[in-house]
Amino acid sequence: MTATRQPIEYADASAEVRSVYDDIMATRNTDWVNNYWKVLAHHPPSLRRMWENAKQVMAPGTLDPLTKELIYIAVSVTNGCGYCIASHTAAARNKGMSTDQYSELVAIIGLANETNRHAAALDLQIDAAFR
Amino acid sequence: MTATRQPIEYADASAEVRSVYDDIMATRNTDWVNNYWKVLAHHPPSLRRMWENAKQVMAPGTLDPLTKELIYIAVSVTNGCGYCIASHTAAARNKGMSTDQYSELVAIIGLANETNRHAAALDLQIDAAFR
Amino acid sequence: MTATRQPIEYADASAEVRSVYDDIMATRNTDWVNNYWKVLAHHPPSLRRMWENAKQVMAPGTLDPLTKELIYIAVSVTNGCGYCIASHTAAARNKGMSTDQYSELVAIIGLANETNRHAAALDLQIDAAFR
Amino acid sequence: MTATRQPIEYADASAEVRSVYDDIMATRNTDWVNNYWKVLAHHPPSLRRMWENAKQVMAPGTLDPLTKELIYIAVSVTNGCGYCIASHTAAARNKGMSTDQYSELVAIIGLANETNRHAAALDLQIDAAFR
Amino acid sequence: MTATRQPIEYADASAEVRSVYDDIMATRNTDWVNNYWKVLAHHPPSLRRMWENAKQVMAPGTLDPLTKELIYIAVSVTNGCGYCIASHTAAARNKGMSTDQYSELVAIIGLANETNRHAAALDLQIDAAFR
Amino acid sequence: MTATRQPIEYADASAEVRSVYDDIMATRNTDWVNNYWKVLAHHPPSLRRMWENAKQVMAPGTLDPLTKELIYIAVSVTNGCGYCIASHTAAARNKGMSTDQYSELVAIIGLANETNRHAAALDLQIDAAFR
Repeated sequence: MTATRQPIEYADASAEVRSVYDDIMATRNTDWVNNYWKVLAHHPPSLRRMWENAKQVMAPGTLDPLTKELIYIAVSVTNGCGYCIASHTAAARNKGMSTDQYSELVAIIGLANETNRHAAALDLQIDAAFR
Repeated sequence: MTATRQPIEYADASAEVRSVYDDIMATRNTDWVNNYWKVLAHHPPSLRRMWENAKQVMAPGTLDPLTKELIYIAVSVTNGCGYCIASHTAAARNKGMSTDQYSELVAIIGLANETNRHAAALDLQIDAAFR
Repeated sequence: MTATRQPIEYADASAEVRSVYDDIMATRNTDWVNNYWKVLAHHPPSLRRMWENAKQVMAPGTLDPLTKELIYIAVSVTNGCGYCIASHTAAARNKGMSTDQYSELVAIIGLANETNRHAAALDLQIDAAFR
Repeated sequence: MTATRQPIEYADASAEVRSVYDDIMATRNTDWVNNYWKVLAHHPPSLRRMWENAKQVMAPGTLDPLTKELIYIAVSVTNGCGYCIASHTAAARNKGMSTDQYSELVAIIGLANETNRHAAALDLQIDAAFR
Repeated sequence: MTATRQPIEYADASAEVRSVYDDIMATRNTDWVNNYWKVLAHHPPSLRRMWENAKQVMAPGTLDPLTKELIYIAVSVTNGCGYCIASHTAAARNKGMSTDQYSELVAIIGLANETNRHAAALDLQIDAAFR
Repeated sequence: MTATRQPIEYADASAEVRSVYDDIMATRNTDWVNNYWKVLAHHPPSLRRMWENAKQVMAPGTLDPLTKELIYIAVSVTNGCGYCIASHTAAARNKGMSTDQYSELVAIIGLANETNRHAAALDLQIDAAFR
């Protein structure tokens, strides 16, 4: 599968793939595309589908863009995904995340992973007030 | 271990445990304590230690209290912890989370879990720009 | 799949399945078999294979039987497996685990899950001394 | 533990270890053994036990060998195991997996991880029709 | 969040939601919709988006529909998602999965989870032949 | 975030950070501090908090220090945390873990991860005797 894991650069991309790259760059107001999309491009239906998902889900909504990135990082750290941590930490920083905010984020992620296991170990029953 | 998984009610608690319960209720401005603490109370050093952690980490800081709860939920959903999802969803609602915010949160959590796996499957190399 | 998830009782079991049940009871010095084996029994090759694995791996070795159960619980809590937590907590208790030992076990499991996520978030490089 | 993580080559292996290597190569019709087995070989009982498991579970049965590899990859990607993804992707390719099949596999793995989290977040009750 | 976790029945659904339900039933050739969609319906953009994803990813392609369900189950079991295991096991059975195929599937999932951890513990280096 | 992921050496650390480093070295009877603490030091409240947790939880108690490390490794392997596996394997070795003990530990971790998934797949009901 080595070949299918090489990023497809814009210059080498089909028109179909280029149109997605163009939309990614326009939406993000940047002049480059990161490896996730360039490797996914080996299967254009997946490239298009995932971009439509990301564009819809990560668009500003009732949650602001920085909060959305913090949530993304929380999941990525919990799953131990190095690539995702790197890419979404960069995105969060671009959206204004401070060093102290990052430290607090990491502290919450750690604590939640700890208490999640306590809850499993102790077989906690959900309090009536939470239902 | 059945006995050690029964919540210890305030009336049955030692002075040491009551002092933690008191601080939980005072800090949260409520008149009750949820099962996590009441079961952890079978081991007072753990009860005190975890409360000190939660109090410090979840206090208002450079991230606001609602954002902290959203991050907590993101971890708890990723780990599939039913108790934690219930308790922190209640906490987030108390801090103002709307129904639409919850729906957006769930969408981001799902998407992040999806792309985390894509990143693993595709053996993505971290872009130079992210370092 | 409902039917294949019903435990197969000894009275209803084939000779092949009974021979495994007999060995489980003899090895454990008990007169009953728990649901894991009774449901796995719908596929005798899996029943026999898994019992041979469990018998070999959980036998006394350079680690004592109680330590082996504590390790099993640590994995099961991290994976959030309610059945496995219940069955191996019972086994550990039968092998002498005290209430305080259980509390310490839960504390370590929680802490390890916390620092595991910190390590991912902080992209820690392994110290030369650890190699 | 550095020494115990070095692969044991055939030339350096004991007769007991060689007999497992021989069976691996004969069963797979190849002339080499991959690192998983060569590192596991530091503990011959584990080497023999795991090979017996793999041989039995991955043998052609009511599921064909390629389907078995796809299932293996799905688990390995979900767990983020780089070695396992690499080795079983190679095995799947040897058994005929096409590039498009791989892309579809990755899409399903991602989607399942996404909806698994939705199900947890939404506390879904199992439909009567599924029981 | 209790209210937002109640399934929205067809009779109570908006035209927008009904149109998705209609497409689900038509595509699957059934006369009912399962809880996943009926709870997701509280947020119509998520309902529509997820259905478009599922429809595209699970459609017959270079992998047949039953194989796709087996992959889905492998992920769901690894994540411990009870709802997903129930729903996709039912789907797989409807697509012809036999009892023995299910047993073999479960055996592979278990083995892969086991060796995934061995690979992590042993810090396995990827063989040159796998690259 | 690159800068905040660089270890802070003793010579460059503030008095507050140095006091924690000093306590780590005194408690462990060593003359160095590993990267986990040196990276966490970018956020002194987290550094102090986590050291207090680790010091309390990993202190000798009703479980001996080596057993505590084995439990830590079991969690770290299950979560696939390379840094944590390396650091706690080194710690366990320093506390007397033999090569055979390590092999047995790895075997139990693998088996538990396997049967955890079987339990989920088979929807096992907890035996009355375990309650």
